Amino acid sequence: MHIVADNLTITNTTIADAVQRMDPAPIQDLVRHCEEAGAGMIDINPGPLTRNPEELMAFLVDSVRKSSNLPLLLDTSNPVALEAGLRVCRGKAIINGFSLEPDKLLHILPLARKFETRIIGYLLYPDSNVPNDGAERLTVALELYSRFSEAGLAPEQLIIDPVIPPLIWQNGNAQAMEVVNVIRTLPDLLGFKVQTIAGISNLTSGPGDTTRKPVFEQSYVAMLAEAGLTMALVNVFHTGTIAAIQACNTLTSTKVFSWL
Amino acid sequence: MHIVADNLTITNTTIADAVQRMDPAPIQDLVRHCEEAGAGMIDINPGPLTRNPEELMAFLVDSVRKSSNLPLLLDTSNPVALEAGLRVCRGKAIINGFSLEPDKLLHILPLARKFETRIIGYLLYPDSNVPNDGAERLTVALELYSRFSEAGLAPEQLIIDPVIPPLIWQNGNAQAMEVVNVIRTLPDLLGFKVQTIAGISNLTSGPGDTTRKPVFEQSYVAMLAEAGLTMALVNVFHTGTIAAIQACNTLTSTKVFSWL
Repeated sequence: MHIVADNLTITNTTIADAVQRMDPAPIQDLVRHCEEAGAGMIDINPGPLTRNPEELMAFLVDSVRKSSNLPLLLDTSNPVALEAGLRVCRGKAIINGFSLEPDKLLHILPLARKFETRIIGYLLYPDSNVPNDGAERLTVALELYSRFSEAGLAPEQLIIDPVIPPLIWQNGNAQAMEVVNVIRTLPDLLGFKVQTIAGISNLTSGPGDTTRKPVFEQSYVAMLAEAGLTMALVNVFHTGTIAAIQACNTLTSTKVFSWL
Repeated sequence: MHIVADNLTITNTTIADAVQRMDPAPIQDLVRHCEEAGAGMIDINPGPLTRNPEELMAFLVDSVRKSSNLPLLLDTSNPVALEAGLRVCRGKAIINGFSLEPDKLLHILPLARKFETRIIGYLLYPDSNVPNDGAERLTVALELYSRFSEAGLAPEQLIIDPVIPPLIWQNGNAQAMEVVNVIRTLPDLLGFKVQTIAGISNLTSGPGDTTRKPVFEQSYVAMLAEAGLTMALVNVFHTGTIAAIQACNTLTSTKVFSWL
Protein backbone atom coordinates (compact mmCIF):
# COMPACT_ATOMS: atom_id res chain seq x y z
CA MET A 1 0.00 0.00 0.00
CA HIS A 2 1.44 3.33 -1.04
CA ILE A 3 1.37 6.14 1.49
CA VAL A 4 -0.02 9.34 -0.04
CA ALA A 5 0.32 12.47 2.11
CA ASP A 6 -2.93 14.44 2.37
CA ASN A 7 -1.10 17.24 4.19
CA LEU A 8 -0.41 19.67 1.37
CA THR A 9 -3.81 21.33 1.37
CA ILE A 10 -5.09 24.86 1.17
CA THR A 11 -7.02 24.26 4.41
CA ASN A 12 -3.62 24.44 6.15
CA THR A 13 -3.31 28.19 6.79
CA THR A 14 0.49 28.16 6.42
CA ILE A 15 0.05 26.72 2.94
CA ALA A 16 -2.81 29.11 2.12
CA ASP A 17 -0.55 32.06 3.09
CA ALA A 18 2.39 30.68 1.10
CA VAL A 19 0.22 30.26 -2.00
CA GLN A 20 -1.18 33.78 -1.53
CA ARG A 21 2.36 35.25 -1.33
CA MET A 22 3.73 32.74 -3.86
CA ASP A 23 6.45 31.83 -1.40
CA PRO A 24 7.71 28.29 -2.09
CA ALA A 25 9.65 27.85 1.19
CA PRO A 26 6.79 26.78 3.53
CA ILE A 27 5.45 24.44 0.83
CA GLN A 28 8.84 22.85 0.35
CA ASP A 29 9.38 22.51 4.11
CA LEU A 30 6.09 20.70 4.45
CA VAL A 31 6.86 18.38 1.55
CA ARG A 32 10.25 17.49 3.03
CA HIS A 33 8.64 16.73 6.39
CA CYS A 34 6.04 14.55 4.66
CA GLU A 35 8.75 12.62 2.89
CA GLU A 36 10.67 12.13 6.15
CA ALA A 37 7.45 10.92 7.82
CA GLY A 38 7.05 8.16 5.25
CA ALA A 39 5.10 9.68 2.36
CA GLY A 40 5.56 7.84 -0.92
CA MET A 41 3.39 10.30 -2.86
CA ILE A 42 2.10 13.83 -2.33
CA ASP A 43 -1.48 14.95 -2.92
CA ILE A 44 -1.56 18.64 -3.88
CA ASN A 45 -4.92 20.08 -2.85
CA PRO A 46 -5.15 23.77 -3.69
CA GLY A 47 -8.94 23.97 -3.41
CA PRO A 48 -11.00 25.16 -6.39
CA LEU A 49 -8.54 28.01 -7.25
CA THR A 50 -11.14 30.44 -8.48
CA ARG A 51 -8.55 33.20 -9.01
CA ASN A 52 -5.42 32.69 -11.16
CA PRO A 53 -5.84 28.92 -11.34
CA GLU A 54 -3.12 28.36 -13.94
CA GLU A 55 -0.50 30.52 -12.32
CA LEU A 56 -1.11 29.25 -8.78
CA MET A 57 -1.26 25.57 -9.70
CA ALA A 58 1.87 25.86 -11.80
CA PHE A 59 3.59 27.61 -8.88
CA LEU A 60 2.48 24.89 -6.44
CA VAL A 61 3.51 21.95 -8.59
CA ASP A 62 6.79 23.61 -9.48
CA SER A 63 7.54 24.34 -5.80
CA VAL A 64 6.89 20.72 -4.82
CA ARG A 65 8.87 19.37 -7.78
CA LYS A 66 11.93 21.39 -6.77
CA SER A 67 12.03 19.82 -3.29
CA SER A 68 10.96 16.25 -3.95
CA ASN A 69 10.88 13.54 -6.58
CA LEU A 70 7.82 11.86 -5.12
CA PRO A 71 4.94 11.14 -7.50
CA LEU A 72 2.14 13.72 -7.27
CA LEU A 73 -1.64 13.70 -7.17
CA LEU A 74 -3.29 16.87 -8.44
CA ASP A 75 -6.38 17.28 -6.33
CA THR A 76 -8.67 20.00 -7.62
CA SER A 77 -12.05 20.19 -9.30
CA ASN A 78 -10.82 23.04 -11.50
CA PRO A 79 -9.89 21.63 -14.94
CA VAL A 80 -7.92 24.73 -15.88
CA ALA A 81 -5.76 24.38 -12.79
CA LEU A 82 -5.40 20.64 -13.39
CA GLU A 83 -4.19 21.15 -16.92
CA ALA A 84 -1.70 23.79 -15.82
CA GLY A 85 -0.36 21.40 -13.14
CA LEU A 86 -0.14 18.50 -15.57
CA ARG A 87 1.81 20.66 -18.03
CA VAL A 88 4.37 21.62 -15.36
CA CYS A 89 5.06 18.00 -14.43
CA ARG A 90 4.78 16.81 -18.04
CA GLY A 91 1.82 14.55 -17.31
CA LYS A 92 3.66 12.61 -14.60
CA ALA A 93 0.92 13.04 -12.01
CA ILE A 94 -2.30 11.37 -11.02
CA ILE A 95 -5.49 13.35 -11.60
CA ASN A 96 -7.63 13.46 -8.44
CA GLY A 97 -10.25 13.02 -9.71
CA PHE A 98 -13.47 12.47 -11.56
CA SER A 99 -16.87 10.94 -10.79
CA LEU A 100 -20.20 10.51 -12.58
CA GLU A 101 -20.83 14.23 -12.03
CA PRO A 102 -21.51 15.56 -15.59
CA ASP A 103 -19.03 18.45 -15.33
CA LYS A 104 -16.23 16.09 -14.32
CA LEU A 105 -16.99 13.59 -17.07
CA LEU A 106 -16.90 16.44 -19.56
CA HIS A 107 -13.95 18.49 -18.37
CA ILE A 108 -11.72 16.35 -16.13
CA LEU A 109 -11.87 12.79 -17.46
CA PRO A 110 -10.57 13.81 -20.93
CA LEU A 111 -7.41 15.22 -19.31
CA ALA A 112 -6.31 11.67 -18.40
CA ARG A 113 -6.47 10.79 -22.09
CA LYS A 114 -4.73 13.96 -23.19
CA PHE A 115 -1.85 13.59 -20.72
CA GLU A 116 -1.83 9.75 -20.73
CA THR A 117 -1.96 9.69 -16.95
CA ARG A 118 -3.79 7.82 -14.20
CA ILE A 119 -6.99 9.28 -12.79
CA ILE A 120 -8.92 8.64 -9.59
CA GLY A 121 -12.62 7.84 -10.01
CA TYR A 122 -14.89 8.38 -7.01
CA LEU A 123 -17.79 6.05 -6.35
CA LEU A 124 -20.33 8.87 -6.08
CA TYR A 125 -23.66 9.52 -7.73
CA PRO A 126 -23.89 12.13 -10.51
CA ASP A 127 -25.21 14.63 -7.93
CA SER A 128 -22.13 13.84 -5.74
CA ASN A 129 -24.15 11.96 -3.15
CA VAL A 130 -22.45 9.00 -1.52
CA PRO A 131 -23.99 5.57 -2.29
CA ASN A 132 -25.91 4.05 0.62
CA ASP A 133 -24.28 0.65 0.74
CA GLY A 134 -21.81 -1.73 -0.86
CA ALA A 135 -24.16 -2.90 -3.59
CA GLU A 136 -24.83 0.69 -4.66
CA ARG A 137 -21.10 1.39 -4.71
CA LEU A 138 -20.49 -1.57 -7.00
CA THR A 139 -23.28 -0.44 -9.34
CA VAL A 140 -21.68 3.01 -9.48
CA ALA A 141 -18.30 1.37 -10.13
CA LEU A 142 -19.67 -0.42 -13.20
CA GLU A 143 -21.14 2.82 -14.56
CA LEU A 144 -17.95 4.74 -13.75
CA TYR A 145 -15.79 2.17 -15.51
CA SER A 146 -18.09 2.24 -18.50
CA ARG A 147 -17.75 6.05 -18.82
CA PHE A 148 -14.00 5.75 -18.22
CA SER A 149 -13.61 3.17 -21.01
CA GLU A 150 -15.75 5.20 -23.41
CA ALA A 151 -13.29 8.05 -22.91
CA GLY A 152 -10.61 5.84 -24.49
CA LEU A 153 -8.69 5.06 -21.32
CA ALA A 154 -6.94 1.80 -20.41
CA PRO A 155 -7.77 -0.16 -17.20
CA GLU A 156 -4.35 0.52 -15.71
CA GLN A 157 -5.08 4.26 -15.79
CA LEU A 158 -8.01 3.91 -13.38
CA ILE A 159 -7.73 4.23 -9.60
CA ILE A 160 -11.05 3.83 -7.78
CA ASP A 161 -11.86 5.68 -4.56
CA PRO A 162 -14.79 3.94 -2.85
CA VAL A 163 -15.29 6.97 -0.52
CA ILE A 164 -14.85 6.15 3.17
CA PRO A 165 -17.77 7.52 5.20
CA PRO A 166 -17.23 9.32 8.52
CA LEU A 167 -18.09 7.03 11.43
CA ILE A 168 -20.46 9.71 12.74
CA TRP A 169 -22.67 9.43 9.67
CA GLN A 170 -25.89 7.51 9.84
CA ASN A 171 -24.71 3.89 9.67
CA GLY A 172 -21.09 5.10 9.40
CA ASN A 173 -19.47 1.99 10.86
CA ALA A 174 -21.57 -0.41 8.79
CA GLN A 175 -20.78 1.65 5.67
CA ALA A 176 -17.07 1.65 6.51
CA MET A 177 -17.12 -2.15 6.67
CA GLU A 178 -18.95 -2.30 3.33
CA VAL A 179 -16.20 -0.18 1.81
CA VAL A 180 -13.67 -2.84 2.84
CA ASN A 181 -15.68 -5.42 0.94
CA VAL A 182 -16.06 -3.15 -2.08
CA ILE A 183 -12.26 -2.90 -2.31
CA ARG A 184 -11.98 -6.67 -2.09
CA THR A 185 -14.71 -7.20 -4.71
CA LEU A 186 -13.72 -4.66 -7.38
CA PRO A 187 -11.13 -6.83 -9.20
CA ASP A 188 -13.68 -9.63 -9.63
CA LEU A 189 -16.39 -7.17 -10.65
CA LEU A 190 -14.37 -5.34 -13.29
CA GLY A 191 -12.21 -8.26 -14.35
CA PHE A 192 -8.79 -6.72 -13.87
CA LYS A 193 -6.41 -5.85 -11.02
CA VAL A 194 -8.19 -2.60 -10.10
CA GLN A 195 -6.08 -0.01 -8.32
CA THR A 196 -7.79 1.64 -5.35
CA ILE A 197 -7.26 4.63 -3.09
CA ALA A 198 -9.06 5.76 0.05
CA GLY A 199 -8.96 8.92 2.15
CA ILE A 200 -8.32 7.44 5.57
CA SER A 201 -8.85 10.67 7.51
CA ASN A 202 -12.50 10.67 6.44
CA LEU A 203 -13.26 7.81 8.83
CA THR A 204 -12.75 9.85 11.98
CA SER A 205 -13.53 13.30 10.58
CA GLY A 206 -15.82 15.61 12.52
CA PRO A 207 -16.15 15.90 16.27
CA GLY A 208 -15.15 12.87 18.31
CA ASP A 209 -12.88 11.38 20.93
CA THR A 210 -9.39 12.48 19.91
CA THR A 211 -7.72 9.82 22.05
CA ARG A 212 -9.65 7.03 20.34
CA LYS A 213 -9.53 8.39 16.76
CA PRO A 214 -5.97 7.12 16.10
CA VAL A 215 -6.89 3.57 17.17
CA PHE A 216 -9.88 3.53 14.82
CA GLU A 217 -7.77 4.88 11.98
CA GLN A 218 -5.01 2.29 12.56
CA SER A 219 -7.40 -0.65 12.90
CA TYR A 220 -9.38 0.36 9.85
CA VAL A 221 -6.33 0.88 7.66
CA ALA A 222 -5.22 -2.69 8.48
CA MET A 223 -8.60 -4.01 7.32
CA LEU A 224 -8.24 -2.02 4.08
CA ALA A 225 -4.70 -3.37 3.61
CA GLU A 226 -5.90 -6.95 3.91
CA ALA A 227 -8.63 -6.21 1.37
CA GLY A 228 -5.94 -5.07 -1.07
CA LEU A 229 -6.13 -1.25 -0.99
CA THR A 230 -3.41 0.12 -3.31
CA MET A 231 -2.97 3.64 -1.91
CA ALA A 232 -3.83 5.19 1.42
CA LEU A 233 -4.36 8.97 1.43
CA VAL A 234 -3.39 9.86 4.99
CA ASN A 235 -2.11 12.53 7.30
CA VAL A 236 1.50 11.34 7.33
CA PHE A 237 2.06 13.01 10.70
CA HIS A 238 -0.25 10.41 12.24
CA THR A 239 2.76 8.31 13.22
CA GLY A 240 0.68 5.40 14.51
CA THR A 241 -1.17 5.12 11.22
CA ILE A 242 2.06 5.22 9.23
CA ALA A 243 3.57 2.50 11.45
CA ALA A 244 0.42 0.41 10.98
CA ILE A 245 0.59 0.77 7.19
CA GLN A 246 4.26 -0.20 7.19
CA ALA A 247 3.50 -3.29 9.32
CA CYS A 248 0.62 -4.18 6.98
CA ASN A 249 2.92 -3.81 3.99
CA THR A 250 5.32 -6.28 5.60
CA LEU A 251 2.50 -8.70 6.46
CA THR A 252 1.04 -8.62 2.95
CA SER A 253 4.41 -8.63 1.20
CA THR A 254 5.55 -11.59 -0.88
CA LYS A 255 9.07 -11.08 0.48
CA VAL A 256 10.40 -13.32 3.24
CA PHE A 257 9.80 -11.72 6.63
CA SER A 258 12.61 -10.50 8.84
CA TRP A 259 12.56 -8.23 11.90
CA LEU A 260 15.78 -6.60 10.66
CA MET B 1 -14.64 -10.47 19.03
CA HIS B 2 -14.34 -11.75 22.58
CA ILE B 3 -11.12 -10.97 24.42
CA VAL B 4 -9.68 -14.10 26.05
CA ALA B 5 -6.77 -13.51 28.45
CA ASP B 6 -3.83 -15.83 27.79
CA ASN B 7 -2.12 -14.54 30.93
CA LEU B 8 -3.03 -17.22 33.45
CA THR B 9 -0.34 -19.68 32.47
CA ILE B 10 2.09 -21.87 34.33
CA THR B 11 4.92 -20.28 32.35
CA ASN B 12 4.34 -17.21 34.56
CA THR B 13 6.61 -18.01 37.53
CA THR B 14 4.32 -16.22 40.01
CA ILE B 15 1.51 -18.52 38.93
CA ALA B 16 3.74 -21.60 38.95
CA ASP B 17 4.76 -20.77 42.54
CA ALA B 18 1.17 -20.16 43.59
CA VAL B 19 0.07 -23.48 42.12
CA GLN B 20 2.99 -25.24 43.85
CA ARG B 21 2.02 -23.73 47.21
CA MET B 22 -1.71 -23.96 46.43
CA ASP B 23 -2.03 -20.27 47.31
CA PRO B 24 -5.04 -18.75 45.52
CA ALA B 25 -4.15 -15.09 46.19
CA PRO B 26 -1.66 -14.47 43.32
CA ILE B 27 -3.97 -16.29 40.92
CA GLN B 28 -6.95 -14.21 41.96
CA ASP B 29 -4.94 -10.99 41.76
CA LEU B 30 -3.95 -11.82 38.22
CA VAL B 31 -7.50 -12.68 37.21
CA ARG B 32 -8.79 -9.39 38.63
CA HIS B 33 -6.12 -7.46 36.72
CA CYS B 34 -7.03 -9.32 33.54
CA GLU B 35 -10.69 -8.44 33.99
CA GLU B 36 -9.82 -4.77 34.61
CA ALA B 37 -7.64 -4.80 31.47
CA GLY B 38 -10.59 -5.87 29.32
CA ALA B 39 -10.65 -9.67 29.43
CA GLY B 40 -14.03 -11.18 28.63
CA MET B 41 -12.86 -14.74 29.22
CA ILE B 42 -9.93 -16.40 31.01
CA ASP B 43 -7.80 -19.20 29.55
CA ILE B 44 -6.44 -21.38 32.36
CA ASN B 45 -3.21 -22.96 31.17
CA PRO B 46 -1.66 -25.15 33.87
CA GLY B 47 0.64 -27.06 31.52
CA PRO B 48 0.42 -30.86 31.31
CA LEU B 49 0.05 -31.27 35.15
CA THR B 50 1.92 -34.54 35.39
CA ARG B 51 1.66 -34.63 39.20
CA ASN B 52 -1.69 -34.34 41.05
CA PRO B 53 -3.59 -33.24 37.94
CA GLU B 54 -7.05 -33.50 39.51
CA GLU B 55 -6.23 -31.70 42.71
CA LEU B 56 -4.24 -28.90 41.06
CA MET B 57 -6.73 -28.25 38.26
CA ALA B 58 -9.64 -28.24 40.72
CA PHE B 59 -7.70 -25.79 42.89
CA LEU B 60 -6.93 -23.54 39.92
CA VAL B 61 -10.47 -23.44 38.56
CA ASP B 62 -11.91 -22.98 42.02
CA SER B 63 -9.51 -20.11 42.74
CA VAL B 64 -10.44 -18.33 39.53
CA ARG B 65 -14.16 -18.96 40.03
CA LYS B 66 -14.05 -17.33 43.47
CA SER B 67 -12.64 -14.08 42.07
CA SER B 68 -14.40 -13.77 38.73
CA ASN B 69 -17.57 -14.73 36.86
CA LEU B 70 -15.86 -14.64 33.48
CA PRO B 71 -16.27 -17.71 31.25
CA LEU B 72 -13.26 -20.02 31.34
CA LEU B 73 -11.18 -21.98 28.86
CA LEU B 74 -9.45 -25.04 30.29
CA ASP B 75 -6.20 -25.28 28.39
CA THR B 76 -4.38 -28.54 29.05
CA SER B 77 -3.59 -31.68 27.11
CA ASN B 78 -4.18 -33.76 30.25
CA PRO B 79 -7.69 -35.31 30.08
CA VAL B 80 -7.70 -36.14 33.80
CA ALA B 81 -7.00 -32.52 34.69
CA LEU B 82 -9.58 -31.35 32.14
CA GLU B 83 -12.28 -33.52 33.60
CA ALA B 84 -11.47 -32.36 37.12
CA GLY B 85 -11.69 -28.74 35.98
CA LEU B 86 -14.95 -29.32 34.14
CA ARG B 87 -16.46 -30.91 37.24
CA VAL B 88 -15.56 -27.92 39.40
CA CYS B 89 -17.23 -25.46 37.06
CA ARG B 90 -20.10 -27.85 36.28
CA GLY B 91 -19.25 -28.02 32.59
CA LYS B 92 -19.46 -24.26 32.13
CA ALA B 93 -16.10 -23.97 30.43
CA ILE B 94 -14.62 -24.31 26.99
CA ILE B 95 -12.23 -27.22 26.44
CA ASN B 96 -8.95 -26.06 24.89
CA GLY B 97 -8.63 -28.26 22.96
CA PHE B 98 -8.42 -31.16 20.56
CA SER B 99 -6.93 -31.85 17.14
CA LEU B 100 -6.55 -34.82 14.80
CA GLU B 101 -3.88 -36.19 17.12
CA PRO B 102 -5.17 -39.72 17.99
CA ASP B 103 -4.77 -39.29 21.75
CA LYS B 104 -6.84 -36.12 21.72
CA LEU B 105 -9.57 -37.63 19.56
CA LEU B 106 -9.74 -40.53 21.98
CA HIS B 107 -9.43 -38.84 25.37
CA ILE B 108 -10.29 -35.15 25.01
CA LEU B 109 -12.98 -34.86 22.33
CA PRO B 110 -15.42 -37.13 24.25
CA LEU B 111 -15.29 -34.76 27.24
CA ALA B 112 -17.15 -32.14 25.19
CA ARG B 113 -19.97 -34.64 24.73
CA LYS B 114 -19.92 -35.74 28.35
CA PHE B 115 -20.03 -32.19 29.75
CA GLU B 116 -22.10 -30.72 26.87
CA THR B 117 -19.58 -27.94 26.44
CA ARG B 118 -17.81 -26.15 23.61
CA ILE B 119 -14.40 -27.37 22.49
CA ILE B 120 -11.60 -25.79 20.50
CA GLY B 121 -10.33 -27.76 17.51
CA TYR B 122 -6.87 -26.95 16.19
CA LEU B 123 -6.12 -27.12 12.47
CA LEU B 124 -3.09 -29.38 12.92
CA TYR B 125 -2.08 -32.68 11.37
CA PRO B 126 -2.38 -35.89 13.44
CA ASP B 127 1.35 -35.61 14.22
CA SER B 128 0.74 -32.01 15.47
CA ASN B 129 2.52 -30.45 12.52
CA VAL B 130 1.11 -27.14 11.26
CA PRO B 131 -0.41 -27.24 7.75
CA ASN B 132 1.70 -25.50 5.11
CA ASP B 133 -0.91 -23.21 3.59
CA GLY B 134 -4.54 -22.17 3.55
CA ALA B 135 -5.70 -25.04 1.36
CA GLU B 136 -4.14 -27.59 3.71
CA ARG B 137 -5.78 -25.88 6.68
CA LEU B 138 -9.18 -26.14 5.02
CA THR B 139 -8.64 -29.84 4.25
CA VAL B 140 -7.73 -30.40 7.91
CA ALA B 141 -10.84 -28.43 8.95
CA LEU B 142 -13.08 -30.78 6.96
CA GLU B 143 -11.46 -33.83 8.54
CA LEU B 144 -11.60 -32.26 12.00
CA TYR B 145 -15.28 -31.40 11.62
CA SER B 146 -15.99 -34.92 10.42
CA ARG B 147 -14.35 -36.46 13.52
CA PHE B 148 -16.10 -33.88 15.71
CA SER B 149 -19.52 -34.76 14.25
CA GLU B 150 -18.87 -38.48 14.56
CA ALA B 151 -18.33 -37.86 18.29
CA GLY B 152 -21.98 -36.77 18.49
CA LEU B 153 -21.33 -33.06 18.91
CA ALA B 154 -23.40 -30.17 17.52
CA PRO B 155 -21.91 -27.48 15.23
CA GLU B 156 -22.38 -24.76 17.86
CA GLN B 157 -20.04 -26.67 20.21
CA LEU B 158 -17.09 -26.29 17.83
CA ILE B 159 -14.59 -23.43 17.94
CA ILE B 160 -11.84 -23.70 15.34
CA ASP B 161 -8.30 -22.43 15.94
CA PRO B 162 -6.53 -22.07 12.57
CA VAL B 163 -3.13 -21.74 14.32
CA ILE B 164 -1.38 -18.45 13.69
CA PRO B 165 2.24 -19.02 12.65
CA PRO B 166 5.08 -16.92 14.07
CA LEU B 167 6.23 -14.32 11.54
CA ILE B 168 9.79 -15.65 11.90
CA TRP B 169 8.80 -19.03 10.49
CA GLN B 170 9.60 -19.87 6.93
CA ASN B 171 6.90 -17.99 4.99
CA GLY B 172 5.46 -16.71 8.29
CA ASN B 173 3.91 -13.54 6.89
CA ALA B 174 2.37 -15.30 3.89
CA GLN B 175 1.00 -18.02 6.21
CA ALA B 176 -0.42 -15.40 8.57
CA MET B 177 -2.32 -13.84 5.66
CA GLU B 178 -3.62 -17.28 4.64
CA VAL B 179 -4.95 -17.76 8.16
CA VAL B 180 -7.04 -14.59 7.71
CA ASN B 181 -8.60 -16.12 4.62
CA VAL B 182 -9.15 -19.46 6.34
CA ILE B 183 -11.19 -17.69 9.03
CA ARG B 184 -13.22 -15.90 6.36
CA THR B 185 -13.76 -19.13 4.39
CA LEU B 186 -14.69 -21.59 7.18
CA PRO B 187 -18.42 -20.72 7.38
CA ASP B 188 -18.84 -21.32 3.64
CA LEU B 189 -16.76 -24.50 3.79
CA LEU B 190 -18.59 -26.09 6.71
CA GLY B 191 -22.00 -24.62 6.01
CA PHE B 192 -22.67 -22.99 9.38
CA LYS B 193 -21.60 -19.93 11.36
CA VAL B 194 -18.31 -21.44 12.55
CA GLN B 195 -16.88 -19.96 15.73
CA THR B 196 -13.14 -19.29 15.63
CA ILE B 197 -10.34 -18.47 18.04
CA ALA B 198 -6.72 -17.51 17.44
CA GLY B 199 -3.71 -17.10 19.69
CA ILE B 200 -2.59 -13.62 18.73
CA SER B 201 0.71 -13.68 20.65
CA ASN B 202 1.95 -16.46 18.36
CA LEU B 203 2.38 -13.97 15.52
CA THR B 204 5.27 -12.12 17.11
CA SER B 205 6.62 -14.91 19.32
CA GLY B 206 10.33 -15.59 19.39
CA PRO B 207 13.12 -13.06 19.06
CA GLY B 208 12.30 -9.83 17.26
CA ASP B 209 12.02 -6.05 17.40
CA THR B 210 10.07 -5.37 20.61
CA THR B 211 9.17 -1.85 19.52
CA ARG B 212 7.58 -3.12 16.31
CA LYS B 213 5.90 -6.24 17.69
CA PRO B 214 2.90 -4.34 19.13
CA VAL B 215 2.19 -2.66 15.79
CA PHE B 216 2.21 -6.01 13.99
CA GLU B 217 -0.05 -7.53 16.62
CA GLN B 218 -2.51 -4.62 16.45
CA SER B 219 -2.60 -4.52 12.65
CA TYR B 220 -3.02 -8.26 12.34
CA VAL B 221 -5.79 -8.46 14.92
CA ALA B 222 -7.75 -5.89 12.89
CA MET B 223 -7.42 -8.06 9.79
CA LEU B 224 -8.68 -11.06 11.79
CA ALA B 225 -11.58 -9.00 13.13
CA GLU B 226 -12.67 -8.04 9.64
CA ALA B 227 -12.48 -11.70 8.62
CA GLY B 228 -14.91 -12.51 11.44
CA LEU B 229 -12.71 -14.01 14.17
CA THR B 230 -14.95 -14.83 17.17
CA MET B 231 -12.39 -14.90 19.99
CA ALA B 232 -8.91 -13.47 20.33
CA LEU B 233 -6.60 -15.20 22.81
CA VAL B 234 -4.31 -12.35 23.81
CA ASN B 235 -2.04 -10.95 26.47
CA VAL B 236 -4.58 -8.51 27.94
CA PHE B 237 -1.77 -6.32 29.27
CA HIS B 238 -0.91 -5.42 25.67
CA THR B 239 -3.01 -2.26 25.98
CA GLY B 240 -2.61 -1.29 22.33
CA THR B 241 -3.93 -4.65 21.18
CA ILE B 242 -6.91 -4.45 23.53
CA ALA B 243 -7.70 -0.92 22.30
CA ALA B 244 -7.45 -2.16 18.71
CA ILE B 245 -9.84 -5.07 19.40
CA GLN B 246 -12.31 -2.72 21.07
CA ALA B 247 -12.16 -0.34 18.09
CA CYS B 248 -12.65 -3.29 15.72
CA ASN B 249 -15.63 -4.45 17.75
CA THR B 250 -17.17 -1.00 17.34
CA LEU B 251 -16.41 -0.95 13.62
CA THR B 252 -17.90 -4.40 12.99
CA SER B 253 -20.85 -3.89 15.34
CA THR B 254 -24.40 -3.70 14.05
CA LYS B 255 -25.10 -0.99 16.62
CA VAL B 256 -25.19 2.65 15.59
CA PHE B 257 -21.79 4.27 16.13
CA SER B 258 -21.20 6.96 18.70
CA TRP B 259 -17.96 8.37 20.12
CA LEU B 260 -19.62 8.54 23.53
